[in-house]
Amino acid sequence: MTETLNTPSEKAGLPPGSLVHIGDELHTSSKMSLLDYNQGNIEEKEIYDIQEALKHKGSETVTWLTIEGLADVSIVEAIGAAFDIHQLVLEDILNTHQRAKFEEHDDYLFIVLKYLESDTEPFELNYEQISLLVMENFVIVFKEKQDELFKPISQRIKNSKGRFRTLGSDYLAYTILDTIVDQYFTLIDCLDDAINNLEEELLDYEPTEAMLHTIHKLKREIIHIRRHIAPLRELMSGMLRCDSELIHEKTYIYLKDVMDHVMRIIESVESHREILSGLLEIYMTSVSNKMNEVMKVLTVFASIFIPLTFMAGVYGMNFEYMPELKWKWAYPTIWGTFIIVPAVLVTYFKKKNWL
Amino acid sequence: MTETLNTPSEKAGLPPGSLVHIGDELHTSSKMSLLDYNQGNIEEKEIYDIQEALKHKGSETVTWLTIEGLADVSIVEAIGAAFDIHQLVLEDILNTHQRAKFEEHDDYLFIVLKYLESDTEPFELNYEQISLLVMENFVIVFKEKQDELFKPISQRIKNSKGRFRTLGSDYLAYTILDTIVDQYFTLIDCLDDAINNLEEELLDYEPTEAMLHTIHKLKREIIHIRRHIAPLRELMSGMLRCDSELIHEKTYIYLKDVMDHVMRIIESVESHREILSGLLEIYMTSVSNKMNEVMKVLTVFASIFIPLTFMAGVYGMNFEYMPELKWKWAYPTIWGTFIIVPAVLVTYFKKKNWL
Amino acid sequence: MTETLNTPSEKAGLPPGSLVHIGDELHTSSKMSLLDYNQGNIEEKEIYDIQEALKHKGSETVTWLTIEGLADVSIVEAIGAAFDIHQLVLEDILNTHQRAKFEEHDDYLFIVLKYLESDTEPFELNYEQISLLVMENFVIVFKEKQDELFKPISQRIKNSKGRFRTLGSDYLAYTILDTIVDQYFTLIDCLDDAINNLEEELLDYEPTEAMLHTIHKLKREIIHIRRHIAPLRELMSGMLRCDSELIHEKTYIYLKDVMDHVMRIIESVESHREILSGLLEIYMTSVSNKMNEVMKVLTVFASIFIPLTFMAGVYGMNFEYMPELKWKWAYPTIWGTFIIVPAVLVTYFKKKNWL
Amino acid sequence: MTETLNTPSEKAGLPPGSLVHIGDELHTSSKMSLLDYNQGNIEEKEIYDIQEALKHKGSETVTWLTIEGLADVSIVEAIGAAFDIHQLVLEDILNTHQRAKFEEHDDYLFIVLKYLESDTEPFELNYEQISLLVMENFVIVFKEKQDELFKPISQRIKNSKGRFRTLGSDYLAYTILDTIVDQYFTLIDCLDDAINNLEEELLDYEPTEAMLHTIHKLKREIIHIRRHIAPLRELMSGMLRCDSELIHEKTYIYLKDVMDHVMRIIESVESHREILSGLLEIYMTSVSNKMNEVMKVLTVFASIFIPLTFMAGVYGMNFEYMPELKWKWAYPTIWGTFIIVPAVLVTYFKKKNWL
Amino acid sequence: MTETLNTPSEKAGLPPGSLVHIGDELHTSSKMSLLDYNQGNIEEKEIYDIQEALKHKGSETVTWLTIEGLADVSIVEAIGAAFDIHQLVLEDILNTHQRAKFEEHDDYLFIVLKYLESDTEPFELNYEQISLLVMENFVIVFKEKQDELFKPISQRIKNSKGRFRTLGSDYLAYTILDTIVDQYFTLIDCLDDAINNLEEELLDYEPTEAMLHTIHKLKREIIHIRRHIAPLRELMSGMLRCDSELIHEKTYIYLKDVMDHVMRIIESVESHREILSGLLEIYMTSVSNKMNEVMKVLTVFASIFIPLTFMAGVYGMNFEYMPELKWKWAYPTIWGTFIIVPAVLVTYFKKKNWL
Repeated sequence: MTETLNTPSEKAGLPPGSLVHIGDELHTSSKMSLLDYNQGNIEEKEIYDIQEALKHKGSETVTWLTIEGLADVSIVEAIGAAFDIHQLVLEDILNTHQRAKFEEHDDYLFIVLKYLESDTEPFELNYEQISLLVMENFVIVFKEKQDELFKPISQRIKNSKGRFRTLGSDYLAYTILDTIVDQYFTLIDCLDDAINNLEEELLDYEPTEAMLHTIHKLKREIIHIRRHIAPLRELMSGMLRCDSELIHEKTYIYLKDVMDHVMRIIESVESHREILSGLLEIYMTSVSNKMNEVMKVLTVFASIFIPLTFMAGVYGMNFEYMPELKWKWAYPTIWGTFIIVPAVLVTYFKKKNWL
Repeated sequence: MTETLNTPSEKAGLPPGSLVHIGDELHTSSKMSLLDYNQGNIEEKEIYDIQEALKHKGSETVTWLTIEGLADVSIVEAIGAAFDIHQLVLEDILNTHQRAKFEEHDDYLFIVLKYLESDTEPFELNYEQISLLVMENFVIVFKEKQDELFKPISQRIKNSKGRFRTLGSDYLAYTILDTIVDQYFTLIDCLDDAINNLEEELLDYEPTEAMLHTIHKLKREIIHIRRHIAPLRELMSGMLRCDSELIHEKTYIYLKDVMDHVMRIIESVESHREILSGLLEIYMTSVSNKMNEVMKVLTVFASIFIPLTFMAGVYGMNFEYMPELKWKWAYPTIWGTFIIVPAVLVTYFKKKNWL
Repeated sequence: MTETLNTPSEKAGLPPGSLVHIGDELHTSSKMSLLDYNQGNIEEKEIYDIQEALKHKGSETVTWLTIEGLADVSIVEAIGAAFDIHQLVLEDILNTHQRAKFEEHDDYLFIVLKYLESDTEPFELNYEQISLLVMENFVIVFKEKQDELFKPISQRIKNSKGRFRTLGSDYLAYTILDTIVDQYFTLIDCLDDAINNLEEELLDYEPTEAMLHTIHKLKREIIHIRRHIAPLRELMSGMLRCDSELIHEKTYIYLKDVMDHVMRIIESVESHREILSGLLEIYMTSVSNKMNEVMKVLTVFASIFIPLTFMAGVYGMNFEYMPELKWKWAYPTIWGTFIIVPAVLVTYFKKKNWL
Repeated sequence: MTETLNTPSEKAGLPPGSLVHIGDELHTSSKMSLLDYNQGNIEEKEIYDIQEALKHKGSETVTWLTIEGLADVSIVEAIGAAFDIHQLVLEDILNTHQRAKFEEHDDYLFIVLKYLESDTEPFELNYEQISLLVMENFVIVFKEKQDELFKPISQRIKNSKGRFRTLGSDYLAYTILDTIVDQYFTLIDCLDDAINNLEEELLDYEPTEAMLHTIHKLKREIIHIRRHIAPLRELMSGMLRCDSELIHEKTYIYLKDVMDHVMRIIESVESHREILSGLLEIYMTSVSNKMNEVMKVLTVFASIFIPLTFMAGVYGMNFEYMPELKWKWAYPTIWGTFIIVPAVLVTYFKKKNWL
Repeated sequence: MTETLNTPSEKAGLPPGSLVHIGDELHTSSKMSLLDYNQGNIEEKEIYDIQEALKHKGSETVTWLTIEGLADVSIVEAIGAAFDIHQLVLEDILNTHQRAKFEEHDDYLFIVLKYLESDTEPFELNYEQISLLVMENFVIVFKEKQDELFKPISQRIKNSKGRFRTLGSDYLAYTILDTIVDQYFTLIDCLDDAINNLEEELLDYEPTEAMLHTIHKLKREIIHIRRHIAPLRELMSGMLRCDSELIHEKTYIYLKDVMDHVMRIIESVESHREILSGLLEIYMTSVSNKMNEVMKVLTVFASIFIPLTFMAGVYGMNFEYMPELKWKWAYPTIWGTFIIVPAVLVTYFKKKNWL
């Protein structure tokens, strides 16, 4: 599913404050799973009624609620009512065309960003918007699709004997962010492979239309990736600057680590963009070189045979008085000329580097 | 109506402070409509004398006055006098070539920006300058044209049972801004469609002059759009920074939402600009590729027939002593040559990738 | 008079602090005119001795002294001595290759900027450096040329019944700045016309060398304009930031208006620069397209007639045993071939889009 | 070993906080060497058990521990435990795809950067990540490879009679940084040589595919170099801003000197990038020039011989009534024409600058 | 002497703090000249022992010591010892590949920058590094070469009756800076001339390889100039910000004047760079235009004569039954065709704008 650049205007005209899911209707129902843990206990279950999750509100244990699929607007509404989330935040959760951002509210933090993935051959971007609501001892994650992306985290929590489970909801939020950002490295690797393949083809073979289209396609994808990744710098520096009580002192160094990763990814994308521009230049120059080569062949062929044809034409003239025609050695002589003239021309062209 | 880039100098030479409408004379008269509401009551009417509207000044109800058409300068003068608006602000309202900006004055806020819209096929920008004067319980909107742009807002106010009507003039101003900015998404969608159509054509068909002109036209339009949209970031951050009593604490989060939209639009326009540059490169490279192809055909034709013609020419010579001429199998033999030489050449060219 | 980019080094080597007029010697003498006004009285006269003007120093009336032509260094020296102007400021007034700037001194403000104008066809820049010394109740304007540029201002002062004449020297300075900046809009209009003309030609006609030269010329002019206009932003923001007693509180809103105009001009120049770059791309692509077209003609001609010539050549051979030569219908048959082969080729080329 | 741009995702999926060496497995074992010195004594030895080094912790002498090869994760773990280094820092040391950065922790400073080197012919980058832990009287250096890079420093310490040995661990860290940064100058020299060679070739010889590939390769390498060097500015300014007690007042001027070098290197790389872009333009233009030359030859050959061939063809026609054929001087006359026509054309072409 | 971009690594490997002259060994010995002055007295002499100069240390008179040629390291060492100059500053003086910078130390200011000059035809840069040590009543200037660059300053001091000689070492330092910066204007003039010459050639004549090389050469030189000049902005703003007691209040306005000049030079260089880019575009487009023209000639020649040759070939066929051959008016008729066909084609081509 290649996203077009369109920033859907489906909602243009609706009053602000109306909760409508804007995006691809990927699933008809939402899947909710809940992980509740503290140092001693852990409980994981799939739930079917949002109220079940909301019971954990205010408990001492850390509760991680994941909602996959945004079609069921009533869930978001229920959460909004239970935790007193601002209407605009709820709208942002449901509108899957958000710019990545971090918002600090009184009782909760709101983070929204894009998860990106791709296959190498052909390079094809997949998008998923992920929103986080981070509250005291409660983290709610909204995903567009149902997948196993955060499986390793729940595994880690279950396996953790102590450390992870003693850390609060902010550390959980960090872990989720870190997982998403780490996946960008995988994406960059795919991009790198695609570009390297292209480069190899470009340097080893003749330029084809298909290569041009691949260059163009990758360029578009990089423009998209950059658009989604660039705001992450702002997002992370916003988190690092914020002094909410929801983020503990000890968590900042972890967030700074994510920030470093984000910087590396942004610079890497930028480098790839430049390399791709270089490939287009290579392509264009190769096309010119190719034309030069074709022109050389034409020039050589034409330049050699055109004079010869003229000479043959001369002795095909029907003048009555053409003494050479009667000369016995004329025919062999002209054949000699037919051989010598091209030989001289070819030598000359070789010297001029045209062959 | 495609705007040229001209920043009309019609007024150059006039003393500052002279109220003259500068812009296209779209309507000879101005249409005024008024919406007055509080939680309990609502009154909507079209008015013909500006004094009628000014009576609402100082009342507890929120009054929304819309003036469509700027030809009647006396209306602006009357408003200026009634609300003690600075002369330069009045001039800015009348001069429809303003840069989008936000100004904080003692008793009122002044906002001016461009509303942009377009059809997809062909992509053709329409401009309208919209100015807002936001005062305590009074919002005046100046529009160049008469259209239904703000109809949904008045509808919403009328339908609202409570919330909207309890919020002040700042929320109304936000709603108006939000409506205009939301329309930009529609514009970007049109732009996106136009670019996608162009891209498809470009990748599927031969490059034509018409495509080049379309690229050029879209490029110009994007330059225009960017010029009108870029100052919106400044406008919104100005509003967010200002600490006027006219904007209530609760409204800031809504303005921040508009700011987010503006950022998304700006980045989207930037991405489209880059994609369009990419399309021009594709076009130019396609032209080169096309020429290569034509050259190949020429080269192949010429390279095959020129030697053959030479050979035919040789046996058209009139020398007396040309033994081959009398040889019985000469003619079939030369025909054989006529077949073998091209066959060899074609094979060679195929191997060299020229066919 | 097209300015070259040269930043004359005529003075390189002179000690700093030597008053010498650097620039084109446009007039051998300087013309001085004086306008002295307060609410009640107004006096306008041409003066021939600088001392006459200096008598107004310290009076309650606002005195506006305009000096047109900088050849007479003694005038500048006398002013410098009378108002205690720093030596470097005097040098800057005389050196007409200044970068636009604003300087706040203890007792006076110094503003220097370029006035630019042009005709449309051909677009040809004219430069004039204008310096302002703004003091308490005294404004001195230094111009390089004698023209009517500020005529409308003096007219306005004379016509003004009250307001203008009650405002101080800072408002006069603002009016002068505003007049100069307003003229930039005229300049941009000329530029706009020139570019539009060029664009029309480019899209409607074949590319010519003349168009290329026009593009190049406009590009150079825009580089010059940008160089002169860009520092104005700094100049104006310097004025807005400065808290000199010479600028009254009420004047700032006017200066802010000029700042808005400057921003619009800068953005407009930038847009024109981009459009011009686009035109160069159009030009280059048109040249390629044109070549493609020429190549197609050549290819078609050559590809059709070269095989035919070969065939004719075949039956021009003089072999004794060529059975076709004796066949009665041979000649009509070959004519048939002469018609069918091109027909087939033309059809094929048409299908391949080469005709 | 040319690095690809890939930012390995090998660790994506692993929980944060797992110590794994990420990078090329260059050596199976790690080599540790230790230099312990104060003003009076100096001791240098290779050690095989990390505990031996840790005994020096807390002593008054400055201890410099170098670990070459990162395969043995237990060493890093032991150091982390002994000096209470944060888990994330240990991870950064082991992951050799770090962005250069400086981190100030309570009891130690962490610096990580890339050492780059290359040979001139062909220009081929080698990378090595070097991490520094700077503590009170203790500096630990982690290197990927075993080489003699820091030999001169240990030599200098051994030879130093007093000064160096009296300075603390911060001066040692500075010396190490300075050594790495100085090596960049060598790298830039290699790059400079490679570019100069290329430039010479490009200006003196015909453009070849090999040159294009060299340009492309150097461009890629510069993109890599820039990516690794650009963050150094931030690193150094971070060090200069930090007010850790670990950096003595006197050391700042030395760090500022390194900062100056870093600035020079960054600007130099930038200049080389621009020059390389210039070379690509030269290349592309040379290709066009070359094609022009080939086209001229073809044009001249074709234009001269095609009319002649036509003339010969005319007198090869078999009409019965062709009076010229019988004319005695016809043959010499046509030969005259065969000589005069090309002479005229050649003269004309020469005048038109086509030969 | 064209400088390459190399940032010599000759010293890489040397310990920091070793005084070695790095740069071209321009002179085997250093020439020292001394100017000592106060309001009443002035003394100028060439000295041969550095100790002679150092005697002036601490005196009330302003002492200006110029050292031309850096080969004699002992002089720098002696100065360093006498004035307690930091080791790194001494190194910077001797290493002639410094980035322009300003350093404020406790008892002295250190300024290092490049002096650039060139001839116009051909444009060829000459570099010289100039370092200044500004102390209370003492200025030491280090130059690489022996020339008359500062002659006008000493002349001015000698001629000055009062003012200059009453001002301190900071004014002397300003004068020296001003002299160097003023020479940049001369350089820019040379550059301007070189570019104008090139432009004229480019617009008036056919593009040649030599022009391409000139463009490339100027581009390189501008890259160099920019690299040397850009840090001057930082240098000057550093001086303007610093609040050392060594710079008197009154001197700041002079430094600000130098800053203005530096800004003008930087912008001028930038403009020239853009103009040069424009020239390259002109060049490339001219090459394309040229090729178009050549192609047209070829096309016209080939398109006219190829059909004629075919027709001649037709009547050169040897079929027995070709009725036209016997027709009496056949030969004149075909000649008529030979004239009409090209006439028609030429008319057609003219209409199509190909001739």
